[in-house]
Amino acid sequence: MTVADSLLPASAAGGSPASIKFLKTPTSPDWIEQAIAHLDTILLDHSHCERKAAGVALNLMFRYPSSTKLVRTLTAIAQEELEHFELVNQWLERRGVALAPLPSPPYGAGLSKQIRPQEPHRMLDSLLVSALIEARSHERLGLLASHCPEPDLAAFYRGLMASEARHYGVYWTLATTYFERFEVDRRLAQLADVESQLLTRLHPQPRIHS
Amino acid sequence: MTVADSLLPASAAGGSPASIKFLKTPTSPDWIEQAIAHLDTILLDHSHCERKAAGVALNLMFRYPSSTKLVRTLTAIAQEELEHFELVNQWLERRGVALAPLPSPPYGAGLSKQIRPQEPHRMLDSLLVSALIEARSHERLGLLASHCPEPDLAAFYRGLMASEARHYGVYWTLATTYFERFEVDRRLAQLADVESQLLTRLHPQPRIHS
Repeated sequence: MTVADSLLPASAAGGSPASIKFLKTPTSPDWIEQAIAHLDTILLDHSHCERKAAGVALNLMFRYPSSTKLVRTLTAIAQEELEHFELVNQWLERRGVALAPLPSPPYGAGLSKQIRPQEPHRMLDSLLVSALIEARSHERLGLLASHCPEPDLAAFYRGLMASEARHYGVYWTLATTYFERFEVDRRLAQLADVESQLLTRLHPQPRIHS
Repeated sequence: MTVADSLLPASAAGGSPASIKFLKTPTSPDWIEQAIAHLDTILLDHSHCERKAAGVALNLMFRYPSSTKLVRTLTAIAQEELEHFELVNQWLERRGVALAPLPSPPYGAGLSKQIRPQEPHRMLDSLLVSALIEARSHERLGLLASHCPEPDLAAFYRGLMASEARHYGVYWTLATTYFERFEVDRRLAQLADVESQLLTRLHPQPRIHS
């Protein structure tokens, strides 16, 4: 499936993990095997991902304080990410895993490098990079929900997916609010190529985006 | 009232605005007059203050990712600040005031300059500066609640106060979690002096912290 003909967020929200729109290449079985073998590390990394996602939303709210739709929409996104952060941290507590720093995989920095520094490109790229990260996170939480051997934890991932499903649609919708649709489509196709390339080789350390 | 003998957050939460603990000097009537004469600007600045407060909490969560009590407590604070941010933005929308940048008064930068760059001082000072900003915000929202001539808006400020009342106690409690009480008391007294000095002369532009 190409990115260009699969851009509608509405269809994305209902799709199965293997058919998440925006993503050029689905996650390999190697990642699932690695993740299931290191559930505690994946949970700790997931905690960092939720906090970072809240941070990204808040940074955009700071950078574009006059863009009312962006500010109001990302306020709700940041609140949800913080709720999820707290839920993941409760899971870590129950499992006796202490909060701790964890080196990031190259994925996030690789995508950030694609953000062009000049406005208005910077805003478009920032929104689409966030859309892609959310789409990949949604796909991978879905894979954890399907493959996690611990029923309670699998149910937790399913629950998170339900409310996270529309985050990437929200970022895409914001992009189409401030930019022409053809420009959004073209740039998303380019960024989706990079996003899939960054995950071609499995990162040796287990992470949500390894 | 000196800072040194008025440190208990429990008593702070129930105090009248004029007796907010932590604060060395109460707000002058000049500020109230300025604020009431520029309610729209004060609301817009208030919006920025709530977003900044969420940003400060999140930054501390990023800086001290292993400090479990800090991370978990500030997650709740950041969520509340975002809720208030959204509420203030709803008020701006109702009044037809567009979201827009607003130059900050010297207050925040003046307090940030007091944060010593080396750890563990940096953590202590960051927590106490936040405690003082929250205490002053609480006091000034209380003054707006008492003096605002528009009953609906006055009621809104009263409502915010109720849930904001304990934020400065939370920052103070976090400080005493990670530092000895005598060190917290001594540093808070120094910072409270600076905080009151920064407000001695009314800033010409109406702000929550002018």
